[in-house]
Amino acid sequence: MTSLALSPDVAASVLAEQQEAYAALQARDLSLDVTRGKPSPEQLDLSNALLALPGEGNVRDGGTDTRNYGGLMGSAALREIFAELLNVPVGQLLAGGNGSLTLMHNALTFATLFGVPGGERPWAKEETVRFVCPVPGYDRHFVLCEELGIEMITVPMTPEGPDAEAVAELVASDPTIKGMWVVPTHSNPDGATVSDDVARRLVSMPTAAPDFRIMWDNAYAVHHLTDVETPSADALGLAAEAGNPDRVLLFASTSKITFAGAGVSFLGASPANLDWFTKHLGVQSIGPDKVNHLRHALFFGDADGVRAHMRQHAEIIAPKFEAVEQILTERLGGTGVAEWTTPTGGYFVSLDVVPGTAARVIALAKEAGIALTPAGSTYPYGKDPLDGNIRLAPTMPPLEDVKVAMDGVATCVLLAAAEAALA
Amino acid sequence: MTSLALSPDVAASVLAEQQEAYAALQARDLSLDVTRGKPSPEQLDLSNALLALPGEGNVRDGGTDTRNYGGLMGSAALREIFAELLNVPVGQLLAGGNGSLTLMHNALTFATLFGVPGGERPWAKEETVRFVCPVPGYDRHFVLCEELGIEMITVPMTPEGPDAEAVAELVASDPTIKGMWVVPTHSNPDGATVSDDVARRLVSMPTAAPDFRIMWDNAYAVHHLTDVETPSADALGLAAEAGNPDRVLLFASTSKITFAGAGVSFLGASPANLDWFTKHLGVQSIGPDKVNHLRHALFFGDADGVRAHMRQHAEIIAPKFEAVEQILTERLGGTGVAEWTTPTGGYFVSLDVVPGTAARVIALAKEAGIALTPAGSTYPYGKDPLDGNIRLAPTMPPLEDVKVAMDGVATCVLLAAAEAALA
Repeated sequence: MTSLALSPDVAASVLAEQQEAYAALQARDLSLDVTRGKPSPEQLDLSNALLALPGEGNVRDGGTDTRNYGGLMGSAALREIFAELLNVPVGQLLAGGNGSLTLMHNALTFATLFGVPGGERPWAKEETVRFVCPVPGYDRHFVLCEELGIEMITVPMTPEGPDAEAVAELVASDPTIKGMWVVPTHSNPDGATVSDDVARRLVSMPTAAPDFRIMWDNAYAVHHLTDVETPSADALGLAAEAGNPDRVLLFASTSKITFAGAGVSFLGASPANLDWFTKHLGVQSIGPDKVNHLRHALFFGDADGVRAHMRQHAEIIAPKFEAVEQILTERLGGTGVAEWTTPTGGYFVSLDVVPGTAARVIALAKEAGIALTPAGSTYPYGKDPLDGNIRLAPTMPPLEDVKVAMDGVATCVLLAAAEAALA
Repeated sequence: MTSLALSPDVAASVLAEQQEAYAALQARDLSLDVTRGKPSPEQLDLSNALLALPGEGNVRDGGTDTRNYGGLMGSAALREIFAELLNVPVGQLLAGGNGSLTLMHNALTFATLFGVPGGERPWAKEETVRFVCPVPGYDRHFVLCEELGIEMITVPMTPEGPDAEAVAELVASDPTIKGMWVVPTHSNPDGATVSDDVARRLVSMPTAAPDFRIMWDNAYAVHHLTDVETPSADALGLAAEAGNPDRVLLFASTSKITFAGAGVSFLGASPANLDWFTKHLGVQSIGPDKVNHLRHALFFGDADGVRAHMRQHAEIIAPKFEAVEQILTERLGGTGVAEWTTPTGGYFVSLDVVPGTAARVIALAKEAGIALTPAGSTYPYGKDPLDGNIRLAPTMPPLEDVKVAMDGVATCVLLAAAEAALA
């Protein structure tokens, strides 16, 4: 990655060429946004039947009146469907409100204020609490840590997930390291999926902290771009097998399956962790929106209903990812100034540019009316030490806009590389 | 209240009489539940149109696609409706998820971890944090305090709300007292509504703590049992007038307007408090369920739609409250062993029995198949110092069951009073 650079002997001609291209780009007066992993309106339309569900006659979920208070674990019918998809025993799966981020925040806040099973004290009573953050990663994870005063240490991502040896070495001797983030399937932003070997290593490695937790954010568990369904490692099962049943907290949601703002979230956990979580959750909630759970259960029917639904998503967004790949290859392939991922699922393409130019690329794009995720946002504290990584999010804009935006980004990448080579 | 007792000269005959009545009660093999303030199925049915809303074609709320991420303040259309009902400027009203308890928990957790505007440090960094709790009060408020290590000091309720002079005296000199609970309208459980005078006193009294907060839980703002709409004091407006704009955090929800488990919650606050709240809320949520907001906005149409809807609730539950009043009067009136409230709104009747017998009454009722709210639950830490208060919740069971339950409760009250007089 650090070897990305524009050859000095072509820099002058590339500069002239791309300055011209950039002027033409600016003249187009664009207003495009590829900043966030948001579903497009066409994707949201796939779930519009939810807007009239559960329907006037439908209020019962088994013996429960979904309209009334109660039921902290959420709808049994819905949990049954997602237990299969998430590889979590249904008794260990809780269904919550409209965002898994809230469940993650709850887990970390409970840990901070009250401690976790197996811990000696609330994390707030420790001198220092640190988390391992594989990079590039998801900015909202980092902000959660920052908010709660959890210091972040980075390890590199690999095509098989976090660099497990690097993690194991860190956590073996440092008891202040209380946990780590993992996006196990089609990770944000680089699209990697944790292999069984890496998963097994992470759940079985010795940790100096007795209350070490893996925040296993399986946000893209069923979000495949091709007909190949990349399976997720069975983190809870492997952790139990390894004698560390309480190490993993698994999170997921339908935010990118049904409605981003009106979906359902899930927490999978060991019995001890689930007791701990629901004990504290019960103080702040009399139960989740079970009508929305019923709505989702009726909409999907079963796990195969979810799988079929996700194939429809792929039909809409796969061409956008193909366009990104095609245009970046056409414009940047062989130039030596960029590398990027070709994900088989998820919501992002991770683009590495000439070190020291990512912020410049993003600024150039912005001035040309193309909004990219802010520089550094794939790193803790918003600080990319190489200033080299850019997250591309092609799902939201129409296909034609994605093409125009990627072509514009390529111009900015080349222009910034030429500037850097000549600086 | 402390003067409640059975006259010794009738105790023996009452005992014999009520032992017989109690035996007959037990023989009926009842299974009745008047423990919690839950809406009845007939009340929930009033909102069944929500089950098919917003409808397949409806996804927009102004310029917003409600299905997608974002919009931390919630739906503008819905906030407009409830701004009028809650007497809060729409710009100062946030609409949230399915429970105001979660908003209250958030507020207290943010205060604990980060402090509040005007405070010197996070409450967790204080030696002691205490809250004033008017009693009898709402058990879930007390549990929130207990969870966060906030000590509770009680003051008595009056027919005009909390005893404001007692509160003012406590908070004037004790900087560890950081806040208080108020249920301003048709309070839980005694049905009192805070007068303008009391409200003015509470928002203007000098407090030793610079960051004192009133948790103004207006849970029953529009929940009137008669045609008289008891108005709520304008707490935010009065606080601003008094030069203490940040003192009040106002909470409300539609849990007892639409669906108890699938409604919408509200937070009303000063601009500074709202900035503080949304800054921390934004770390745990990308926005509330705006589809549910739109669903509610379409269902009500406007504030008058809510008012008309609440009159339908009153038609269902007012006869239940009348039955409680009638049976308690018939059975306990003039006996000197009980006093109770006759609320004009809300969800509860507060019943005071002979001191030292409340737990016994609840145990007797339980053995006869009538579940009452656990003894002590209207007091912090579940400890009613007089063992004299019982909360009755007549909304959930059918009218006939309410009648049977109240008759049974009256028997238990008399029996326990006779036992006590003869002990």
